[in-house]
Amino acid sequence: MVELVTTGSELLLGEIINENVRYLSQQLNQMGYSVVYQTTVGDNPARMESVLRTALARTDIVITTGGLGPTQGDMTKLVGAEVMEVPLVFREDVMQTVTSWIKLRHPERDLTGNQRRQAMIPEGAEVLENGAGTAPGTALYKGGKLLIHLPGPPAEMRWVFDYRVKPYLQRLFGSQGYIYSSYMKIYDMGEARIEDTIMDLVKEQSNPTIAMYARIGFVEVRITAKAADEQAAKALVLPMREKLCSRLPNVIVTYDDESVAAALGRVLLKKGLTVSGAESCTGGLVGSYITDIAGSSAYFLGSAGTYQDRVKVSVLGVSEETLRLYTAVSEETAAEMARGSRVLYHSDIAVSTTGIAGPDGGTAEKPAGLVYIGVDGPWGTTVHKNIFPGNRIEVKERAAMKAVFYVLRSICRNIRKEEPYGSEADGIGKCHEKN
Amino acid sequence: MVELVTTGSELLLGEIINENVRYLSQQLNQMGYSVVYQTTVGDNPARMESVLRTALARTDIVITTGGLGPTQGDMTKLVGAEVMEVPLVFREDVMQTVTSWIKLRHPERDLTGNQRRQAMIPEGAEVLENGAGTAPGTALYKGGKLLIHLPGPPAEMRWVFDYRVKPYLQRLFGSQGYIYSSYMKIYDMGEARIEDTIMDLVKEQSNPTIAMYARIGFVEVRITAKAADEQAAKALVLPMREKLCSRLPNVIVTYDDESVAAALGRVLLKKGLTVSGAESCTGGLVGSYITDIAGSSAYFLGSAGTYQDRVKVSVLGVSEETLRLYTAVSEETAAEMARGSRVLYHSDIAVSTTGIAGPDGGTAEKPAGLVYIGVDGPWGTTVHKNIFPGNRIEVKERAAMKAVFYVLRSICRNIRKEEPYGSEADGIGKCHEKN
Repeated sequence: MVELVTTGSELLLGEIINENVRYLSQQLNQMGYSVVYQTTVGDNPARMESVLRTALARTDIVITTGGLGPTQGDMTKLVGAEVMEVPLVFREDVMQTVTSWIKLRHPERDLTGNQRRQAMIPEGAEVLENGAGTAPGTALYKGGKLLIHLPGPPAEMRWVFDYRVKPYLQRLFGSQGYIYSSYMKIYDMGEARIEDTIMDLVKEQSNPTIAMYARIGFVEVRITAKAADEQAAKALVLPMREKLCSRLPNVIVTYDDESVAAALGRVLLKKGLTVSGAESCTGGLVGSYITDIAGSSAYFLGSAGTYQDRVKVSVLGVSEETLRLYTAVSEETAAEMARGSRVLYHSDIAVSTTGIAGPDGGTAEKPAGLVYIGVDGPWGTTVHKNIFPGNRIEVKERAAMKAVFYVLRSICRNIRKEEPYGSEADGIGKCHEKN
Repeated sequence: MVELVTTGSELLLGEIINENVRYLSQQLNQMGYSVVYQTTVGDNPARMESVLRTALARTDIVITTGGLGPTQGDMTKLVGAEVMEVPLVFREDVMQTVTSWIKLRHPERDLTGNQRRQAMIPEGAEVLENGAGTAPGTALYKGGKLLIHLPGPPAEMRWVFDYRVKPYLQRLFGSQGYIYSSYMKIYDMGEARIEDTIMDLVKEQSNPTIAMYARIGFVEVRITAKAADEQAAKALVLPMREKLCSRLPNVIVTYDDESVAAALGRVLLKKGLTVSGAESCTGGLVGSYITDIAGSSAYFLGSAGTYQDRVKVSVLGVSEETLRLYTAVSEETAAEMARGSRVLYHSDIAVSTTGIAGPDGGTAEKPAGLVYIGVDGPWGTTVHKNIFPGNRIEVKERAAMKAVFYVLRSICRNIRKEEPYGSEADGIGKCHEKN
């Protein structure tokens, strides 16, 4: 069990995102080490000492990042040595490495006396070379407890971890097995409903474990197993994924890193279909999501951003009467926008968005977050009404992601009825395997 | 002194970035509360209990995020109540709010029994309404210790914090002084050059302090002061900002949360100008960035996504000869796309993007990351060639952000020469105050 201790006042002030803790957590978990606590503390010796004492009492491996540099604020090694009850000793070889690193890159700089701090190493510790900067890491294993100090700058931290900590841990503890996770993203069923459906499986599992998270626009189910190696871990996970799938028939699912835009691309490619957009409140984000996928030029023609009424008329051919009778934010306008996009781009399927991203412009009847999403295809036009929560940018994101999803679902539902577009045998529109 | 406790195994696994802890740290510090520890723990009752006990022992205010939902994994309130030694009680009024929230948005969903968990509240706690989701927060002040539970989804967490926790803290503890930071974002000058220009100011300051960070597409300079109240803190920061500004003449700068899209919107509104787009490799992201700004419907007409050559011709009127002679990724095509967008939308200014987002499709002559950005206005057409680093999505982001910047700079540079669009007295195109 591992505790990560990140140091630095800029983290406590919320100035930067803690990328280091995420990277280390991912890497360690995959190597079979469980990260059970992550703690952040500032450049304050008393608090840092108490954090390190607590960490070493409740876990066996403590990894710190930050505070190895030359300045007064850099105190991690000092505090760490005190807690581990060893002195810091000056290492001439480390000093030479530090000196030549600086001289090579900044020949004009004077070597300041405080650079010596970087060559002070806890007695008995292994020096972990830093191939991306000056301050080396250290690893001290004493009394069954391992305390590792890593530099704070992310590129340096990653270098030391990848090239020095990984082999060091392998040497000290041997292989810790392998943790494999697979993710199912479920787009058209709520969290509570999914839990109802699979709760017995969630409860009875310990390896693999099953966990659920509500994301923006979908629910993620994570299946994680620990085993001796990758093969064995996968052999635990994949049958469970099958089992979950069989409980969720006719639900649109993507796996692992596959986004809904990627799944849509896969289906469009397979069917030889093209898609286009017509966007009002999303401003272009639907097109942007679709083109996040490499190779989307094979099926994506373009998306016409039409933010103002007059260009809905002139570019997409929405009728002025529709806008007058129903306004721009209506089922009718969404339908005409989708149809207009299909004509403009000569696409097989078109998707449209029109709504109120907010925060202003909403009414009791049409609140901020109300978005109509239209899908037009050879099988006709459908319009979906949604009220999305969140701020302006989140409403846009949710609407754009949902728009991509509706295109996928529309193909999945209609393709089954209508040859020449395909049949159920294609495995689209039900809980399906990435292929 | 505050400890933030974020819960959720997905954080320990490194699956997601901890955005909540950053937001809360920023907000609390600004309100004069010192965040001294940030701890993350998984969905494990024993460890969560020990973390909460430690936190309540070493700080007076503990704020948790996550684990308030309807599922078995949601245990924060349960553990919190145990540590504070109060029972959880079912609150009918909270249940009604939860029920009506779900019914309004998902009329088709059955209310599952586990939704009741969200209406269980620590006895004696204040219920903190959640205007962006179902699970309310709670605040329990007992024996000089304050334990606040907030929901985990970022939009919900921010809503509850902004509208319920802030006034609650003000009521309970009064004002705690004020930390004010102002940020200058500098778009057209490198970090080293800026540092050279302002280094003496950076060095001699202690309140306010000055710090610099290289971001994607700009350099950020932060000026921070602490004082008794907002007024006094601003009085320390603003003159320093003026001083820095006077060192950076004719540099495009935005302040604080203002994005370059917001600055563009401000300038367009002031000048009564409209803008439109024509996007190939960015897929719609330029339009999306522009419409991230509330009120953008006053000056943004739309952006024509034209991903394939034939729609560049049919929608934007790019000539087939240009495409044949120079290909789609060329200065000439970018120029014709921008001009075509200006005609299609009847806009005053239009911006276009065409390039190779990658990872495939690049050649030695035209590598992945190559993007031409055209700007067309009453003063003529300019095309900028850029080669952006990063993966496909980063190339799209950098290109779209740069496109918005070029529109702003184009207005700033041309407006000065040409009345009727304005004059230097408008303060555009030099280091300028938000107004």
